[in-house]
Amino acid sequence: MQNPVFIPGPTNIPEALRRACDMPTIDHRSPLFGQILHPARTGVRRVLKSDSAEIFLFPSTGTGGWETALSNTLSPGDGVLVARNGMFSARWIDMCERHGLEMTIIETPWGEGIPADRFEEALTADTGHRIKAVLATHNETATGVRSDIAAVRRAMDAAGHPAMLFVDGVSSIASMDFRFDEWGVDVAVTGSQKGFMLPPGLAILGFSQRALEARATATLPRTFFDTRDMERGYAANGYPYTPAVGLMNGLNIACDMLLSEGLEAVFARHHRIAEGVRAAVAAWGLKLCAVRPELQSDTVSAIRTPEGFDANRIVAHAAEAYGVAFGTGLGAVAGKVFRIGHLGSLTDVMALSGIATAEMVMADLGLPVTLGSGTAAAQEVYRATRATALKDAA
Amino acid sequence: MQNPVFIPGPTNIPEALRRACDMPTIDHRSPLFGQILHPARTGVRRVLKSDSAEIFLFPSTGTGGWETALSNTLSPGDGVLVARNGMFSARWIDMCERHGLEMTIIETPWGEGIPADRFEEALTADTGHRIKAVLATHNETATGVRSDIAAVRRAMDAAGHPAMLFVDGVSSIASMDFRFDEWGVDVAVTGSQKGFMLPPGLAILGFSQRALEARATATLPRTFFDTRDMERGYAANGYPYTPAVGLMNGLNIACDMLLSEGLEAVFARHHRIAEGVRAAVAAWGLKLCAVRPELQSDTVSAIRTPEGFDANRIVAHAAEAYGVAFGTGLGAVAGKVFRIGHLGSLTDVMALSGIATAEMVMADLGLPVTLGSGTAAAQEVYRATRATALKDAA
Amino acid sequence: MQNPVFIPGPTNIPEALRRACDMPTIDHRSPLFGQILHPARTGVRRVLKSDSAEIFLFPSTGTGGWETALSNTLSPGDGVLVARNGMFSARWIDMCERHGLEMTIIETPWGEGIPADRFEEALTADTGHRIKAVLATHNETATGVRSDIAAVRRAMDAAGHPAMLFVDGVSSIASMDFRFDEWGVDVAVTGSQKGFMLPPGLAILGFSQRALEARATATLPRTFFDTRDMERGYAANGYPYTPAVGLMNGLNIACDMLLSEGLEAVFARHHRIAEGVRAAVAAWGLKLCAVRPELQSDTVSAIRTPEGFDANRIVAHAAEAYGVAFGTGLGAVAGKVFRIGHLGSLTDVMALSGIATAEMVMADLGLPVTLGSGTAAAQEVYRATRATALKDAA
Amino acid sequence: MQNPVFIPGPTNIPEALRRACDMPTIDHRSPLFGQILHPARTGVRRVLKSDSAEIFLFPSTGTGGWETALSNTLSPGDGVLVARNGMFSARWIDMCERHGLEMTIIETPWGEGIPADRFEEALTADTGHRIKAVLATHNETATGVRSDIAAVRRAMDAAGHPAMLFVDGVSSIASMDFRFDEWGVDVAVTGSQKGFMLPPGLAILGFSQRALEARATATLPRTFFDTRDMERGYAANGYPYTPAVGLMNGLNIACDMLLSEGLEAVFARHHRIAEGVRAAVAAWGLKLCAVRPELQSDTVSAIRTPEGFDANRIVAHAAEAYGVAFGTGLGAVAGKVFRIGHLGSLTDVMALSGIATAEMVMADLGLPVTLGSGTAAAQEVYRATRATALKDAA
Repeated sequence: MQNPVFIPGPTNIPEALRRACDMPTIDHRSPLFGQILHPARTGVRRVLKSDSAEIFLFPSTGTGGWETALSNTLSPGDGVLVARNGMFSARWIDMCERHGLEMTIIETPWGEGIPADRFEEALTADTGHRIKAVLATHNETATGVRSDIAAVRRAMDAAGHPAMLFVDGVSSIASMDFRFDEWGVDVAVTGSQKGFMLPPGLAILGFSQRALEARATATLPRTFFDTRDMERGYAANGYPYTPAVGLMNGLNIACDMLLSEGLEAVFARHHRIAEGVRAAVAAWGLKLCAVRPELQSDTVSAIRTPEGFDANRIVAHAAEAYGVAFGTGLGAVAGKVFRIGHLGSLTDVMALSGIATAEMVMADLGLPVTLGSGTAAAQEVYRATRATALKDAA
Repeated sequence: MQNPVFIPGPTNIPEALRRACDMPTIDHRSPLFGQILHPARTGVRRVLKSDSAEIFLFPSTGTGGWETALSNTLSPGDGVLVARNGMFSARWIDMCERHGLEMTIIETPWGEGIPADRFEEALTADTGHRIKAVLATHNETATGVRSDIAAVRRAMDAAGHPAMLFVDGVSSIASMDFRFDEWGVDVAVTGSQKGFMLPPGLAILGFSQRALEARATATLPRTFFDTRDMERGYAANGYPYTPAVGLMNGLNIACDMLLSEGLEAVFARHHRIAEGVRAAVAAWGLKLCAVRPELQSDTVSAIRTPEGFDANRIVAHAAEAYGVAFGTGLGAVAGKVFRIGHLGSLTDVMALSGIATAEMVMADLGLPVTLGSGTAAAQEVYRATRATALKDAA
Repeated sequence: MQNPVFIPGPTNIPEALRRACDMPTIDHRSPLFGQILHPARTGVRRVLKSDSAEIFLFPSTGTGGWETALSNTLSPGDGVLVARNGMFSARWIDMCERHGLEMTIIETPWGEGIPADRFEEALTADTGHRIKAVLATHNETATGVRSDIAAVRRAMDAAGHPAMLFVDGVSSIASMDFRFDEWGVDVAVTGSQKGFMLPPGLAILGFSQRALEARATATLPRTFFDTRDMERGYAANGYPYTPAVGLMNGLNIACDMLLSEGLEAVFARHHRIAEGVRAAVAAWGLKLCAVRPELQSDTVSAIRTPEGFDANRIVAHAAEAYGVAFGTGLGAVAGKVFRIGHLGSLTDVMALSGIATAEMVMADLGLPVTLGSGTAAAQEVYRATRATALKDAA
Repeated sequence: MQNPVFIPGPTNIPEALRRACDMPTIDHRSPLFGQILHPARTGVRRVLKSDSAEIFLFPSTGTGGWETALSNTLSPGDGVLVARNGMFSARWIDMCERHGLEMTIIETPWGEGIPADRFEEALTADTGHRIKAVLATHNETATGVRSDIAAVRRAMDAAGHPAMLFVDGVSSIASMDFRFDEWGVDVAVTGSQKGFMLPPGLAILGFSQRALEARATATLPRTFFDTRDMERGYAANGYPYTPAVGLMNGLNIACDMLLSEGLEAVFARHHRIAEGVRAAVAAWGLKLCAVRPELQSDTVSAIRTPEGFDANRIVAHAAEAYGVAFGTGLGAVAGKVFRIGHLGSLTDVMALSGIATAEMVMADLGLPVTLGSGTAAAQEVYRATRATALKDAA
């Protein structure tokens, strides 16, 4: 357990955050609790770049966050527009279907981003405004593809459509630029274990005023995920059931860390680290799943392996031989890609150890990779960008 | 934060469990995860005294556990029989109503247990078997009342009624005797933060074969709380979303601790500690909320304060003046009781410090309590029962 | 391990200090080290109430601190004046003898403090100034006796004697008032595990200018404990060998905690807690080893048990039956006293749990102690002094 | 603080050992202490490959261990034979001189090992047996040179000289083969922070029967470091002053870890990791300070940088630019070498991250190093030896 992990979340947890989470029990009905709850919520709001989003924290996961988004705002039979371009968008679609929502699904190749133009067409065609919500997965963790949420918003505006915009930012928020207010997001969903660098266990949501208002008419059943109970609890310094105090304390400290570093610096750091990984991939003669540079995620790289080679062998061999965890391919790209997660608190040095390990693993398995080649390519990136980063900071 | 807490959960967390939860990140898609998941589930099954219950662990709370029980087994319009005798039964009833279930509610005074005879009447009268589930709160945390689940089962059997039996054992399981198989429980619900002595964040459930089968016809929407997704995940050493690995590791170790000590010894220990608290209450000239001795909970004592005195002042003053957390009264007994939680890992010495603090607090607030009186009464109990406990262990 | 300890050091360690000590490895030759070392030394100087003492931190214990004091300032054959009134003064005398120093020992009953008048006589008689150092144990941990160091200084001044004054403040510094500059102390010795609330492992010393100068002529061999090597190391942000970085980091934070609370408030807190223990002792009908009130230590109470009763049985039974650690009697009072340590970070509530335990133990062993009596007496003290403390703080 | 450290001790501390050290306070006068002390001493004895060495654990460092060795066995004026071939042997010589010992010093080039033949000459010439002790530094941490202690013993035997053999194994014991009994070692000295992978703070010593007997006549003053006090303490389950319980608990667990892995496996692991580093050094076109392969240490590599280049710049730049700690050159090789520590709990992956960092640093500073070259060389070693290691384990 001494090596860093390179899965696309949960991330390596900084020591300060492990300690913040590992709290002795406090009375969650005492004023102490409010001193954790409210700053944590304010911190998240700032990380979302919002002035007004209402922040909800559930003892749950991103999946619970999706359910919170749907069940608080929609009713059976409501229309939902979404693109299916990866494992996580597919799962959210499945959840919608189980809740009896009427889906308009834009099938999109895995490796592509959300096709904003096709969203515009679908919304324009929906003259009766049957579609109540547009779902968008900001960063497809399975393919390492970042979609353009601003473009989705422009498409909605161009169509003059009143649907709400729900964004899954599980593997983007706090690592890549996310603009809740500017993009007109109505519900943003993330979890504790990605950009916030914490253990799993919290669903973290931002709701716009419109989303809050939608609760009055939404008839999907909800109790555990009812944001109105949360709201009443928060107003009384409390919680509708037993809160995960330690994780919330960790979230509070995580926001402090992110905001002290500066969000733009955090995003730039993720970009630097990702650029190194991408340089290594190129040096190995391999391709990313993301089909165009602007789609490449700064939190996870899904790397296509040669035709006929089972990419999962890389993950298994890395774990067994070198004690390093990479991500397997999921769903449609299972066996075709392996993933290097590079989000959260990662140094150049940690990234290089992952790259060097991947090289050994691929060589061990007979792939035509030159030892040291990816490492050298990443070293060049890190040396160069480090200098720039230092200059910018000065 | 150096004093023990005396809230009725979350409990004081033993150091070994804090450490078990405070894990570095592992790859939850690797075989390591199965080495945590499966033993944790087996451990819980043994704590429930079941040979066959299917155990589910959700990153959630007891409230999420209630929702899991309902949404996996029932459909809108299904009938549910339940007694309302405290805050937590009231909340579970509210959840049922939000899910469109048809409630048969036996109103019961707070301080009383579940009236099994009235359950038998209601079930006998339900000749059409409209009632699909009987809900029972084993230990009402708000009133410190333990109900007789075996009697509920006998009532169901006497009525020859096929309803399922769902038991909220949040504040009883792992602290007081619970017999999943013998009592014919169909769904048992608890959380990580009570008898398992862990931080909050896990809903822990046992499902009988009948409850598992009910999923096929239950139409309430569910995704996050869908036990079929869980079941498929577990079968593949996995999880349908990101698991709370640290808490599950803690649960695994907690079960080891409980089972090593021996369940009967754990229950006896809780009884001893509770007897000391009850002796103190008597010495103070106060009464418990639980109206008869057989109803008195071994995990929490709700203590009635004199007419006209706001019991919440005790909790506030204890926190402010002495840094000790007791539980406030909730719902119908708010202001009328304060609660001493005595569950989880508590020593005689810790219990005495809580009792001695309560004495100071009551004296400070002008209640006619003799300093040292409750302490002395509890000391007598602890001295005597310690000797017996040692003899029994020998 | 859930109960507090009531040994007279090492103390219960506040969580913040355990964490400060539990550091990952840093390069102790890097600038980071200086950021721990120098603030820790400055903090200790302030705790000693000195403007100019040179502070030395050795990876050692109080015993090593004694050796540092002697070996850096004295030569074989040098005269030393000291009172033998307890185990720790006796041990320091033994160390002097092993180093070939010429001892003038004032035999003093255990339970008494240092007889300043007899020191004055001895110093006045030493017209040839053969005596180079006066040793004084500020707080005799074995007997719970605090001596008057200001009086020792007055005696030295009255005799017009140039000897240096070395004070063992192991169990007083950071818990009871200590005035390095005002009392004209030349070497003060303590350890990490008492008033500083840390694990054992550091000897902490203050040297006056005179003591520093004495090194030039002192011929006792020294290397590990050579303060000149330390001084050179500190000047270069370094250390003459591998420093105990974690403990030094802990010391830094401990000083912050003490100075933030305020030294006078820390001393008052120790006095309050001690007064409660003393009230309990009186209520039990027992006597302290310290023969007069002004000698009673605020960090440890040595309690005489009835003639013919082996006091060690109390310590053994408390540990075995209740999991609570008290201190045994040492040396001349072995079997005649048991000790309750009440130093470091202790709350009223923790103190009461120790008192209540002692009551049970004594009752178990047949001593004529009324259960609850000591607890009630201490409760009165804590209730009353808490009110005063709050008023003073306001 | 997320990157591994590559200083030649203190090492990276495995999480299990940090936790073992981070203990709550226990009563060190209770039987619990013996349950830590005795197994820790037994574990160390086994790690030393001794059946009979008496093991002493002091709250101190390796330097204190040297002083323990000397002061317990020698008297002022006793003769000591030693080679000066590095910083640490030079410091031990300095300590001897301060204690008034008569030194016979064999000046030896830094980078060379102990010249056993010259020892034999010197001992043969000492017909009067003025030399009471031969000092040998097993692994010179400053130069990365391992000396042949078996050859020293052979030289002593060939000369038929009765001197005792004292070995500084600070940076070898528990990482490289050490044979207390077979080599006829009389005192072995190490610390907690190297092969035992713990924080600094313990001097760890093994004494032969002869060394124990030498105490009877040795007249150097000693108290803190008196092994007879320790011996008496151990016999009574105690300690002569306050023990560093947490570190001793850590030592106990560290020995378990080492002995479970198997000493030969531990040594082979260190050799593998070191071979990778050495392959990298060769690929960079640089030379080790150790002048012949058989002298190359498996715990630290001191790497000579080109003439005219200040090697300390590497250490400073690595720390500042990449947050990685390497070791500076000390004493005669200051500015001429930098050091990569590779002892303790280190994985291939961690080692590669250090090597890759060194490459970037040297490139940044203009040294003619090909990025990725050393990494590739080490990768080859790790891939190949991993396969062998797995086969051997099977």
